[in-house]
Amino acid sequence: PAVLRLSVMTDELIKEHRATPFSPHYCLLLLLCPDHWVGYEYPEFQGQQFILEKGDYACYQAWSGNSSYRTEHMLSFRPIKCAKHSDSKITLYECEDFMGSKFEMCEDYPSLQAMGWCSKEVPSIKVNSGAWVGYQFPGYRGYQYIYERDRHQGEYRCYNEYGTQAHTNQIQSMRRIQQ
Amino acid sequence: PAVLRLSVMTDELIKEHRATPFSPHYCLLLLLCPDHWVGYEYPEFQGQQFILEKGDYACYQAWSGNSSYRTEHMLSFRPIKCAKHSDSKITLYECEDFMGSKFEMCEDYPSLQAMGWCSKEVPSIKVNSGAWVGYQFPGYRGYQYIYERDRHQGEYRCYNEYGTQAHTNQIQSMRRIQQ
Repeated sequence: PAVLRLSVMTDELIKEHRATPFSPHYCLLLLLCPDHWVGYEYPEFQGQQFILEKGDYACYQAWSGNSSYRTEHMLSFRPIKCAKHSDSKITLYECEDFMGSKFEMCEDYPSLQAMGWCSKEVPSIKVNSGAWVGYQFPGYRGYQYIYERDRHQGEYRCYNEYGTQAHTNQIQSMRRIQQ
Repeated sequence: PAVLRLSVMTDELIKEHRATPFSPHYCLLLLLCPDHWVGYEYPEFQGQQFILEKGDYACYQAWSGNSSYRTEHMLSFRPIKCAKHSDSKITLYECEDFMGSKFEMCEDYPSLQAMGWCSKEVPSIKVNSGAWVGYQFPGYRGYQYIYERDRHQGEYRCYNEYGTQAHTNQIQSMRRIQQ
């Protein structure tokens, strides 16, 4: 069954410690170990990013956040290295290249605007600790972007560095990826 | 513009302290005050539920969690009464009618299975404090169900009581609604 198919794929990834292309077209996912992965629309970690946590994903809508642009396949995967949940920290900046006023976050925020961030955009981001996911819309919806301390030295100077599919710097909710 | 239109609608709701039908077809939402609302697919709080937090919702995908069943309109709204974030507490039960083993939660969980909940289903739920939202899939995706201390006395004995659109008790992620 599909569950086993992806379990086997996950085992292979663990063994090889690198991601390989795989197309779970409409299949049932059961992610095993480690608990956190990011799937990509295209091979070589290109295109839309999809945060995957332990559970069943019965259809592509379960992992995709943007249904106006259907993405029914994921063609590369890699595990996410998280920090201890309570140690996670990220800094948002008002302008690109870490300029302007900044805001440090240690919690999940389903609405950055409710927290006091005055814009629907986040021009640059520095990850101090852990792994985070930002979302285009409030309530953890829309395009997803992963931000990690262990990649890019945790520095994301402009939206081009958020991901290969990022066309804007619109980020309206953000949360830690739990260890 | 659409932004103002819904601002006006929101003001009316606050003034009257009750929800009125409104159809924000593809419009840009900017929710003002209070910060948390639930929108419903149909009038009289029927059909799919959509948690709305402060921010811009530029298209229906921004609020809808299930794109296999498109819901481009919301026809009734009501505000959500939240608890202080750190005081929120909810209890999940293994069987209907609060039977079987139980688990108390005070945190957000993007994957209940990663937390140790062995099933992808939650048969009954008791809200001890605050307002919570449960999701069909991990990572806060899929159908959304709101659970509140101040409604049903916080008691949800079976999935029929989760909402008028609930066809199963599949709940794989859950979070507090922040005050």
